[in-house]
Amino acid sequence: MSSVFERRTRAAQDRLREADADLVCFPSHNLYYLSGFDEHPGERHLLLFVPQTGDPTFLVPALYGEQVRETSWVEDVRTWDDDEDPREALSTVVADLGLGDRVLVDDTMHARFTQDLAAVHDAEMGLASEVLGPLRTRKDDAELDALRRAGEAADEALTAVRALGEEVVGWTETDLARRIERELDAAGGSGVSFAVIAGSGPNGAMPHHTHGDRTIEAGDPVVLDFGTVVDQYPSDQTRTLVFAGDPPAEFETVHEVVREAQQAAVDAVEPGVTCEAVDAAAREVVADAGYGEQFVHRTGHGVGLDVHEEPYIVAGNDRELEPGMVFSVEPGVYLPDEFGVRIEDLVVVTADGCERLNHTDRDWRC
Amino acid sequence: MSSVFERRTRAAQDRLREADADLVCFPSHNLYYLSGFDEHPGERHLLLFVPQTGDPTFLVPALYGEQVRETSWVEDVRTWDDDEDPREALSTVVADLGLGDRVLVDDTMHARFTQDLAAVHDAEMGLASEVLGPLRTRKDDAELDALRRAGEAADEALTAVRALGEEVVGWTETDLARRIERELDAAGGSGVSFAVIAGSGPNGAMPHHTHGDRTIEAGDPVVLDFGTVVDQYPSDQTRTLVFAGDPPAEFETVHEVVREAQQAAVDAVEPGVTCEAVDAAAREVVADAGYGEQFVHRTGHGVGLDVHEEPYIVAGNDRELEPGMVFSVEPGVYLPDEFGVRIEDLVVVTADGCERLNHTDRDWRC
Repeated sequence: MSSVFERRTRAAQDRLREADADLVCFPSHNLYYLSGFDEHPGERHLLLFVPQTGDPTFLVPALYGEQVRETSWVEDVRTWDDDEDPREALSTVVADLGLGDRVLVDDTMHARFTQDLAAVHDAEMGLASEVLGPLRTRKDDAELDALRRAGEAADEALTAVRALGEEVVGWTETDLARRIERELDAAGGSGVSFAVIAGSGPNGAMPHHTHGDRTIEAGDPVVLDFGTVVDQYPSDQTRTLVFAGDPPAEFETVHEVVREAQQAAVDAVEPGVTCEAVDAAAREVVADAGYGEQFVHRTGHGVGLDVHEEPYIVAGNDRELEPGMVFSVEPGVYLPDEFGVRIEDLVVVTADGCERLNHTDRDWRC
Repeated sequence: MSSVFERRTRAAQDRLREADADLVCFPSHNLYYLSGFDEHPGERHLLLFVPQTGDPTFLVPALYGEQVRETSWVEDVRTWDDDEDPREALSTVVADLGLGDRVLVDDTMHARFTQDLAAVHDAEMGLASEVLGPLRTRKDDAELDALRRAGEAADEALTAVRALGEEVVGWTETDLARRIERELDAAGGSGVSFAVIAGSGPNGAMPHHTHGDRTIEAGDPVVLDFGTVVDQYPSDQTRTLVFAGDPPAEFETVHEVVREAQQAAVDAVEPGVTCEAVDAAAREVVADAGYGEQFVHRTGHGVGLDVHEEPYIVAGNDRELEPGMVFSVEPGVYLPDEFGVRIEDLVVVTADGCERLNHTDRDWRC
């Protein structure tokens, strides 16, 4: 049976031969993408070897043996027991497969495994993204379908949270985050795609603050950045809301600037345009309004099996957009000790522009 | 102000000087342990440099600058912007600090960062656990307090789930997992410490199966392995329950063997005993009953900021137990295509034995 996973592996091997490299994955989205086996990184050696030619080999802890054989199309599944030294098993596999002088490893592979690999095999090390990045960046229809459904679930949760209005005043950020998690589940999502960000008042000025004990008050702008997972694919959207009362005087101005910047970036998206041009479209609007210094991050990041992956929408990235790419467009302005504003949608590049995957109102009023 | 985090860093530096090595952390539990800043790994360079002598330095993305300065005692916080090449900033820090010929990195540091570090600094690489493992393995009172409370929350959730009894028949494993997650939150936990395992019938025979669409039927043994987090510290316990009906004929025998094996291992725990002796105590009971081949994993693992850390309770580990160590005792027997049985408690080594952190009934009846 030729599965979608086997087809992806064969496509990866075509590129590995061009790069004259072999590939080693550990529990990662790359490993799932190629083998169909989904697992989180652990401290035990669980590795997938994909040589330039021939069939891949799994080396897994004995307790995973049955599960890997049932799940994956890969036929050569070797196991090691907890009372063995996994480096010996590793050494045997490396020798049997005749790994070459250049080995690509998962960008996220842990040092405990890369150091063992380096100890048993003297080779130049590179990153798997070199070969798998281009493959994974252009989503196929099944992937787009999952991404759309994940986006709908996030939209449904945002709509439910927005409807809470003044009820939210007096809640802590954590209360609100828990409510968002429940709404995401109710909308058909499977958990969160990253820790919910509910940054109220000055906490919203710290772009990667998640949520804490601060109580949300009337007039607080609240940055709500969250997503869920549907069939392994994540959503990621942001709205900045004021649940009740009047926000700080400068907030309305800043919010409008960010909204215009986000629209300008979305308008710039089409095949052939560079990633940095999309970033510049947003940045120009913000800079013209005098807030350039307060827009402290890139405009966006690719989204797929990883919630942060290529392409990065950032100055200096002259990569050209291609149909099927999916990424976030999320300009933000942050006034330390006061508030932050960020607005984010995912978009998929189409033949002549883009399609947003998030559709809720971008206004700050509830 | 000398924080607990600064004191830990100074203790780590004492050991770094003994090892003649410098240390580099990325977002990890080591980084939290030393700096007080808690973050998940991302694709941006966020590194903490701890030289053998002198003060540590953070290199973080600009959007984290404010948050790191607010959270951590570390005073030298340098930032890089999304439109800069982080490798240049990395190179500057490495030169400024005069990193030496031996550098320890987080055991979990991602290849994208270790490869960049290797590119700008020619040094022998080792793992941070060499120096931080011994420090983190003996828990202090505050850590034990958090671990006890996390254990209580897991016990409370297990008790609530057990009380469901025959109501669970007809649920999918995922339904049950979601209920467990809600019970953990209700018991004061903060999310799950790992994906809930609810392995019913034959799925219980795959030790690391989490949960899926299989419907739980009367007579199914269900392996329930889960934990939550309290003040950054996790719980981890397992009970194997039959919610209704009569289990397979061999199940009662196997369950009793596993229960005796778990008790034998717990009885073996005291300072000076080796990790492998504790493993052997459980394994002997299982082997004597004729199920040695079906006990496919080690008896336990240390638990602290990481839910899997040193000490590993496994054959070949002659490390001696010390007061303050916390680890799981979790023998299991797995009959492929039929069922699995695992029973797990966390224990803390005391002056003359151990204290269990889980106290619910170990029987399989609800």
